[in-house]
Amino acid sequence: MKRMVFALIAVAAVAGVVAYTSPAYGEENEAAPAFVDKIPPGYRDWKLISVAHEEGNLHSFAAVLGNDVAITAYREGTRPFPDGATIAALHYSHAPSDENNKAFGRAQSFVPGTPTNIQFMVKDSKKYAATGGWGFAHFKEGKPGDEALLKTCFPCHNQAKASDLVFTRYAP
Amino acid sequence: MKRMVFALIAVAAVAGVVAYTSPAYGEENEAAPAFVDKIPPGYRDWKLISVAHEEGNLHSFAAVLGNDVAITAYREGTRPFPDGATIAALHYSHAPSDENNKAFGRAQSFVPGTPTNIQFMVKDSKKYAATGGWGFAHFKEGKPGDEALLKTCFPCHNQAKASDLVFTRYAP
Repeated sequence: MKRMVFALIAVAAVAGVVAYTSPAYGEENEAAPAFVDKIPPGYRDWKLISVAHEEGNLHSFAAVLGNDVAITAYREGTRPFPDGATIAALHYSHAPSDENNKAFGRAQSFVPGTPTNIQFMVKDSKKYAATGGWGFAHFKEGKPGDEALLKTCFPCHNQAKASDLVFTRYAP
Repeated sequence: MKRMVFALIAVAAVAGVVAYTSPAYGEENEAAPAFVDKIPPGYRDWKLISVAHEEGNLHSFAAVLGNDVAITAYREGTRPFPDGATIAALHYSHAPSDENNKAFGRAQSFVPGTPTNIQFMVKDSKKYAATGGWGFAHFKEGKPGDEALLKTCFPCHNQAKASDLVFTRYAP
């Protein structure tokens, strides 16, 4: 028991140091741009919201994931999404699969090819009040998109006002 | 403390009753067919493996999810997959999105339409030894597919021997 208590104190101490030296995600100061500039940690473990496929110039595949706040809001139909809700769109090229096509005996199968970018929407009704309460992000190879690109997110998403600026529906 | 201990004993007692009255998933008797006949609980909360899109006669979208055993095996490259690994393919029709197309200003966007079926692969090297260690399942509106359909799973997946009969790759 003594050992366990000591271990817990040690963990708490380390956690304290980490908390002190690196501000938690979402705690940027007021001078920061109204865009999301850090990749939300752990997003690849989030639950599935839906999938998507864009043709036109994009030829892209998306897996759309949500953190627990977002998933609960989707499942319970809560709109607007509560603060803290975060949605991740993992984009890949829409690539034919030679292996699958061989198994099927014809060309019909598409799978994610090269990862192209990851986009996030983070709900914080105060911080991102100017863009409908959502902060937008675009990361390519871990680097954030430039401001000109990020400025295009809100006007487009603002067309989906009825669903709190979110296009993606929950896939059952 | 006394209360807490009592509560824990009560929980353990209830768990004991549940364990006694309902056999755990995967514990069917030997007379059961070598297919999976129960929907693995909680699959909709599993982590993302990848997405897929089939054309031809299917016009289908898939979200492929894995339980923790499967996800760990994918991330660590463990092949063959260990017993208990379970992979779920949630299929939907590949439907155009009028709302997204309006936002993009052209017809380019596809989203999951009607759910069509959910397929599972469950690894149990003893129980499913005759089909490469994998039990296959197909559920449509909650009902299992018939034996004729299920018999087609293994010969097709057996073409992917190099990846332990699994076609889907992990999307980063």
